[in-house]
Amino acid sequence: MKPLHSIALKHERNSVWILDQTRLPFDEVWLEAKTPEEMIGFIRSLKVRGAPLIGVAAALSLGKFSETNPSRSLFLEVAARVREARPTAVNLMAAVDRIVQNPQEATRVAEEIFEEDVALCDAIARNGAKLFEKETVLTHCNAGALATAGVGTAVGVIAHAFRLGRIESVFVDETRPLLQGGRLTTWELKKMNIPYTLICDNMAGFLMQQGRVTKIIVGADRIALNGDFANKIGTYSLAVLAKYHGIPFYVAAPRTTLSLTCHSMRDIPIEERGASEVRGFVGTSSVVWSPQDSPVYNPAFDVTPAHLVKQFILDTGVYSSEEVAQGVFNLLAATQPSKNLRSSM
Amino acid sequence: MKPLHSIALKHERNSVWILDQTRLPFDEVWLEAKTPEEMIGFIRSLKVRGAPLIGVAAALSLGKFSETNPSRSLFLEVAARVREARPTAVNLMAAVDRIVQNPQEATRVAEEIFEEDVALCDAIARNGAKLFEKETVLTHCNAGALATAGVGTAVGVIAHAFRLGRIESVFVDETRPLLQGGRLTTWELKKMNIPYTLICDNMAGFLMQQGRVTKIIVGADRIALNGDFANKIGTYSLAVLAKYHGIPFYVAAPRTTLSLTCHSMRDIPIEERGASEVRGFVGTSSVVWSPQDSPVYNPAFDVTPAHLVKQFILDTGVYSSEEVAQGVFNLLAATQPSKNLRSSM
Repeated sequence: MKPLHSIALKHERNSVWILDQTRLPFDEVWLEAKTPEEMIGFIRSLKVRGAPLIGVAAALSLGKFSETNPSRSLFLEVAARVREARPTAVNLMAAVDRIVQNPQEATRVAEEIFEEDVALCDAIARNGAKLFEKETVLTHCNAGALATAGVGTAVGVIAHAFRLGRIESVFVDETRPLLQGGRLTTWELKKMNIPYTLICDNMAGFLMQQGRVTKIIVGADRIALNGDFANKIGTYSLAVLAKYHGIPFYVAAPRTTLSLTCHSMRDIPIEERGASEVRGFVGTSSVVWSPQDSPVYNPAFDVTPAHLVKQFILDTGVYSSEEVAQGVFNLLAATQPSKNLRSSM
Repeated sequence: MKPLHSIALKHERNSVWILDQTRLPFDEVWLEAKTPEEMIGFIRSLKVRGAPLIGVAAALSLGKFSETNPSRSLFLEVAARVREARPTAVNLMAAVDRIVQNPQEATRVAEEIFEEDVALCDAIARNGAKLFEKETVLTHCNAGALATAGVGTAVGVIAHAFRLGRIESVFVDETRPLLQGGRLTTWELKKMNIPYTLICDNMAGFLMQQGRVTKIIVGADRIALNGDFANKIGTYSLAVLAKYHGIPFYVAAPRTTLSLTCHSMRDIPIEERGASEVRGFVGTSSVVWSPQDSPVYNPAFDVTPAHLVKQFILDTGVYSSEEVAQGVFNLLAATQPSKNLRSSM
């Protein structure tokens, strides 16, 4: 594989490296993923996260693995395990499926997936920025450069619109329990000198009531063909609050987030994670603040029905929920970015 | 003053003691409030919290102070400082106003305020429990025994309804940033053997979408005469989500939470607190997880319009938002619990 670099994933000196996102915003530590198994560990522990990025990272680790000339059956077995590292983000499955369709060309396909994700992000940012005028925008979780191989999805749109003078400032939901907003989106916005204000998730509604949010934009981990989508837990509440307050709500994602196998939210599996994440803070240091044996519910994602979305911002264009209801995603999902390498998803 | 005991406030051996709520759920440490100034510190630092409790605690500290035979002008000066310890909860102002109307009887009035709060909580619990059948109820923050001199408001209703077999289990919002749900409500429910599940605030909407919440009940820090009310930040978002999903939303509070000077939410001052609470976790141990210089918005409360409330559960009875719109709170606010000691609020 050739050298590839993004803010949190790289291939250089014949090794695949990931930026350990659990140590941000304070420490920038790169870890080598020597094997697909190590990459699975990094994905499960959220050292690598973000729906597009885990797809690209999985592809690179399989590309690298293919260079060790494994048997076809071993390669497929390992690929199947990688594919199951996390259940909700469809980009992971789509990327692995593209690799296993053509195992002897795994490195080339992996490079292609990486470079394609960069291009997809750029297209999303251009398409989205046009929708903004002079906004105070709210975003949730981290759908930025850290979540992709490129400039990000929702944060890519924000950054591009900011450079065009179309965004005044950004409210960042901290995004409990894993605090991707408080830890990661703040870090990215600060690096780009984009003014932001950090809030707790439960403050967003009060800001909307006060008329202090003009648009909301989030990413997506999986989009069903009818436009229902899964994203970080808390997204659904924001979408309902946006509808109630008449605030436009946008979803930014690449075509690779569309799932041919999901017709509606009923088909989207939702990952539940461990209780310790909710009983306190789990990071480089850990704190428990609730009773040690507290029963916990910890869904990593929620699902939002398409009708709560004003527009979907994809690399191919911008689509209203009405257009989506008429089937536009069925067509798009069938034309994956690389025509010669259609996903089997 | 005579001996007085509640779960987090007591007068015994001629001293006023508070349970340090910042150290719960792990350590049960009682601190003596030797002077009103010390009580102000305990209130500001949230060692004592909960709208009714800070009113009662303020009263006890002034009752004790009166026993040192201060001059009238000094007593009034100290009382005025106590009254301003926190700006949103009206019970604090109401309690201090009652004391200063009759400084020479401060100890008797303080005892009366304590015992009255116990009786108010009991009446609220009885009135509220009747509204429940076989519920999975969601609550926010801590409106329990820790927040009052009695059994609590919202949690008092929950506990009484549970004993009557009318509640199956409770979802507890952790309530960022200070985690009163995760730290305190869990602790209380566990003590009472009431089954609960802890969630992050941003998960409540997803639970409602799944039909897993049948009722929502919260306390209040201040209720305007038109029924608009202030409560812990995040309450407004819950009320909007409840409305959207058709889930009955209840507010439980004593009459002492009504504010004669507030006609609607526009008149309710909202306390903003320090950035460090949002940049991480501030407790017995502290953790910072976002960039150290993150700009932050940290309102301690939000305001919810009356029309989002199904019923207000007071010590005097249960009132629909329609009845409140017709002025029932104007009448109630004019009849404070102790007829011979009307609040000047």
